[in-house]
Amino acid sequence: MADGESIGIGLMGLGVIGSGVAKVLLGKPETLAREAGSRLVLKRVLERDVSKHGALGIERSLFTTEFNDIVGNPEIDIVIELIGGEHPAFEYILECLKRGKHVVTANKEVMSKHWTELQTVADRHKVSLRYEASVGGGIPLIAPFQEDLVANEVRAIYAILNGTTNYILTRMAKEGIDFSVALKKAQELGYAEADPSKDIEGVDAAYKLAILSTIAFSTEIKPEQVYHEGISRLQARDFRYAHELGYAIKLLAIAKRTGQHVEARVHPVFIPEESLLAKVDGVYNAINVEGDLVGNVIFYGQGAGPSATSSAVVSDVIKIAQHINRGTVSPARLPRESGLKVKPMSEVETRYYMRMNVADRAGVLAQISKVLGDHNISISAVIQKESDPATQTAEIVIMTHPAKEEAVRLALKETERLAVVREINNFVRVEA
Amino acid sequence: MADGESIGIGLMGLGVIGSGVAKVLLGKPETLAREAGSRLVLKRVLERDVSKHGALGIERSLFTTEFNDIVGNPEIDIVIELIGGEHPAFEYILECLKRGKHVVTANKEVMSKHWTELQTVADRHKVSLRYEASVGGGIPLIAPFQEDLVANEVRAIYAILNGTTNYILTRMAKEGIDFSVALKKAQELGYAEADPSKDIEGVDAAYKLAILSTIAFSTEIKPEQVYHEGISRLQARDFRYAHELGYAIKLLAIAKRTGQHVEARVHPVFIPEESLLAKVDGVYNAINVEGDLVGNVIFYGQGAGPSATSSAVVSDVIKIAQHINRGTVSPARLPRESGLKVKPMSEVETRYYMRMNVADRAGVLAQISKVLGDHNISISAVIQKESDPATQTAEIVIMTHPAKEEAVRLALKETERLAVVREINNFVRVEA
Repeated sequence: MADGESIGIGLMGLGVIGSGVAKVLLGKPETLAREAGSRLVLKRVLERDVSKHGALGIERSLFTTEFNDIVGNPEIDIVIELIGGEHPAFEYILECLKRGKHVVTANKEVMSKHWTELQTVADRHKVSLRYEASVGGGIPLIAPFQEDLVANEVRAIYAILNGTTNYILTRMAKEGIDFSVALKKAQELGYAEADPSKDIEGVDAAYKLAILSTIAFSTEIKPEQVYHEGISRLQARDFRYAHELGYAIKLLAIAKRTGQHVEARVHPVFIPEESLLAKVDGVYNAINVEGDLVGNVIFYGQGAGPSATSSAVVSDVIKIAQHINRGTVSPARLPRESGLKVKPMSEVETRYYMRMNVADRAGVLAQISKVLGDHNISISAVIQKESDPATQTAEIVIMTHPAKEEAVRLALKETERLAVVREINNFVRVEA
Repeated sequence: MADGESIGIGLMGLGVIGSGVAKVLLGKPETLAREAGSRLVLKRVLERDVSKHGALGIERSLFTTEFNDIVGNPEIDIVIELIGGEHPAFEYILECLKRGKHVVTANKEVMSKHWTELQTVADRHKVSLRYEASVGGGIPLIAPFQEDLVANEVRAIYAILNGTTNYILTRMAKEGIDFSVALKKAQELGYAEADPSKDIEGVDAAYKLAILSTIAFSTEIKPEQVYHEGISRLQARDFRYAHELGYAIKLLAIAKRTGQHVEARVHPVFIPEESLLAKVDGVYNAINVEGDLVGNVIFYGQGAGPSATSSAVVSDVIKIAQHINRGTVSPARLPRESGLKVKPMSEVETRYYMRMNVADRAGVLAQISKVLGDHNISISAVIQKESDPATQTAEIVIMTHPAKEEAVRLALKETERLAVVREINNFVRVEA
């Protein structure tokens, strides 16, 4: 080990996460040096806003707005990318790898879209590319999936990968409030951004699931192959019915092996109230992986935030430093082609919860169940609530046995055309 | 990578776990070869009972009763030790390392008692020693603690590390039955051994906590430094009171940094009913680690059983095979001396639950609280149940504020000497 020598760090991006990482690097240098085998020295920071130097205690002279001061700096061994977003982060990472820099990133969008290309370049240039923080914040996931569970064939992943939506759903469930109210509360507390669409619509979770499932199923799964659907259609009454039926509602990222296919999808799901995932509240993340040997293993923790994320980023930096000191490179981790294909969403089979407004009249249920039956969808439970005398309508909730997504979509369209059906209010998939 | 070549495996012990590992090695050789970079070939099995060969499909000629056929066999690169117990497993592992064999073990007793010596020998002979399965069965713990959370200073570990006792406590809590009844049921189902004392008394969990806390706190913590206390004193009524007060009862392994000390202890604990650890039921394990950066992370899964354990054992074998193929050795992981000392149990401070039988008479509580007060123990809650007219006694439950173990012991002795106190029935520590 090159004890006593130092390893140079370049930091790109000094936003919330970048500032958190800088704080750790500057705040406990001895501890980090003991683990890494060398001092980790911050050499340059790529950041436009120089005013940030004061609060963080970073020398003003380290700030630059020129990417070349990072990539062209011979004193920098490891570059930490915390700019976020696809561009220019992707191009910067690519260039750093090509110029022989090791890279640590928390960028889920870049990793899910460009992993194969980046890893190939990293391997060619014998440098490390690490991205533990890209999924699950501080929760160890990438390394356990790649290394510690390697003897397993992964059967399924069920995961809460987005803290913002889990926070909103928790408040909706506990307080009986509607989506828009819960969203506003989340924004007031800083748990949701001003433009929350990437979180709310499941895009963020889809990026993360693409990364995890690519590793778990040894086949490249791109974000656009992950079906995603958001939580904005959920209403307070869906939570009440769910509870009545023994379920909680969570936004789950699901990847599941079925024969030669992998299902990969993000959407709201009814899950049994007693399951551990149902009990994961607030901004926390939880990832349940099912392996053929290990059975179900759950990882739980803070999926976001500067402190938790810096735990993963700095641990990645330390691992690379250890490799530098031993003269080794962390081995390539390109997805081996398992031949599994992503199943189209229309082919996916699950159980369904359906809520609809119907005319308060005899024989309505018979008509609906006939349409469902015509599409091979059988009903497992029905709740019919008292009718509203003013509008002469009633609300019906139907739980189905497993049925194909495509059939359910068609059946719902047909059902909506029935004269006795006023409106299909919602439908949510069920995983038991 | 030495693709196509093979790596020789010697297996010591073909009990429940050994048979599970043999099944995996023989059952999916292609999958393992793809991950390891070489075929993993079982060369010899150290096992007296040759009759086992049939069911497992192991060639009879591979069986031996001579340790030398393992350690002296040049075709064996990696030895898997699954004999269990301290002797002769320790001597066998030591000898294998000295003779240049890599070793994978699930042996918590040997690892907790002899880790430093074994690791020193492994380092000297440039071979790997891996023991992921020694704690938490198939749950990735050793590697995440050593590598993925390395940027953190660990503040505390709260863990359910013994499935047998968690199963018994779950049944006691859910069915209102007493310890002896629950134990018998666990034995009937194979979840508890005929002689369950190591599980029941917390010895097994203490071995595991010694290993985890040695890693987490970078200081050698021996099993005999871990205070342990079993679950046999718990009664159905303790669970009823716990529930009434909003708590569950779990056997927790706790390691906690307090200043320059580490507390390391295994005993029944009251924990808040809404905490996730309280919701871990049956034979499952769960490990909550609190780091300065990452906050609380929980790992959950099957802590025992042949299939889950073989997940960890075989993943360890694959990691070593990858190193062999790259010509590297997994780096030494000796606990760096952090200077932290184990705090004597008498110095530990927690809250307490106390249950006692007292004379059904005015002024009793005043007498008891005076004794407690004399020892600086203050009361946070009291439950007094209706008295038993036959014996003219009443049951009192007291919850205290944090107090020193030593003071509580003394106070309880004095309380027991009060004329109005018939018996101290139980006391249990409380963690909030």
